[in-house]
Amino acid sequence: MKSNDVPEIVISRLPLYVQTLNQLLREGKSVVSSSELGDRLKMTSSQIRRDLSHFGGFGKQGTGYDIISLMETLRNILNLNQIWQVVLVGVGHVGQALLNYDGFSRKGFEIIAAFDESPKVIGKKFGNLEVKNIDQLESEFCILKVDIGAITVPAENAQAVCDRLVNCGIRAILNYAPTALEVPEDVQVSNIDPVLKLQKMTYYLK
Amino acid sequence: MKSNDVPEIVISRLPLYVQTLNQLLREGKSVVSSSELGDRLKMTSSQIRRDLSHFGGFGKQGTGYDIISLMETLRNILNLNQIWQVVLVGVGHVGQALLNYDGFSRKGFEIIAAFDESPKVIGKKFGNLEVKNIDQLESEFCILKVDIGAITVPAENAQAVCDRLVNCGIRAILNYAPTALEVPEDVQVSNIDPVLKLQKMTYYLK
Repeated sequence: MKSNDVPEIVISRLPLYVQTLNQLLREGKSVVSSSELGDRLKMTSSQIRRDLSHFGGFGKQGTGYDIISLMETLRNILNLNQIWQVVLVGVGHVGQALLNYDGFSRKGFEIIAAFDESPKVIGKKFGNLEVKNIDQLESEFCILKVDIGAITVPAENAQAVCDRLVNCGIRAILNYAPTALEVPEDVQVSNIDPVLKLQKMTYYLK
Repeated sequence: MKSNDVPEIVISRLPLYVQTLNQLLREGKSVVSSSELGDRLKMTSSQIRRDLSHFGGFGKQGTGYDIISLMETLRNILNLNQIWQVVLVGVGHVGQALLNYDGFSRKGFEIIAAFDESPKVIGKKFGNLEVKNIDQLESEFCILKVDIGAITVPAENAQAVCDRLVNCGIRAILNYAPTALEVPEDVQVSNIDPVLKLQKMTYYLK
């Protein structure tokens, strides 16, 4: 799954850097030091310098990072300078929230098809997108060569949906179902489960 | 913020252990080895033994872990043997998805109040819960001594809502707004941002 030697934990922090740099830019800043960036991200400046050193030299000692240039470089590293097409399966409450969320498309992720098995939502329109019958998943979308699938079905149906997406050639899955999916080695899964986050925080609440 | 010396990264994995043990139990198993658990969690068995060793000895060499007993111990460590009350601010698409999601209450997290500023949703009912005017946040809920707040407002309003929750004594925040919140040291924030997860995966998609 890993295309080079940069640790996955470092890669997972890069989007946070991009988000924070973006925020600094909106605040009118053009240069940022690693310690300022560290304060924002609750990391040490040496951790930040170590993370970025995986990708060559950025900024010079003492002058800080040029925000636009660092942000553009990180966006290139993360392959964000293109539109990524996403297929969504499951148009319940969470699926509908995603279909109504404009943050995806603004950040370069476009939901190009949505599927469900319920007659209640099949045919329903969200923006320009009409929900299709899950039976048509293979015929409608296998031909499209989409890389990313979002699974927003109940836990008990998630593995079956996942298998079908993987058979269609999906290589990255955003999984909202509260269950661990089994996938081949070359397929990535990112889980979004608020309960896991809550359960971690309660550890510190006593 | 940390109440003892166990690394935060270890604590963040404990809910995953609980989830997986639960799944094994539903599959009819009663004992699991660290290597089986490792296969499920895509971790090495030595990593798992090291994680669990922070909390004393579990299982004996060669016999594996008793699933129920390990799960109960981890649930105790995470303070999951009680109902945690949650206040939700922002009843847009994401907020409504959370209000309609029964997985929270089944896992011991109960949304006891929901607030919004829009007349479109104020007064609207979700189950037994009526959405209240955000103006009433302090009068309605500061008195309730709730520990956890969920923020599901647009990014530009999130910090202001966060400040008000913190003033009410909230100690843990589940933040769905795509922005980094500033909080005092003793307040925890967990961010749920699907875009950050997608942006990590695209690194591996070229």
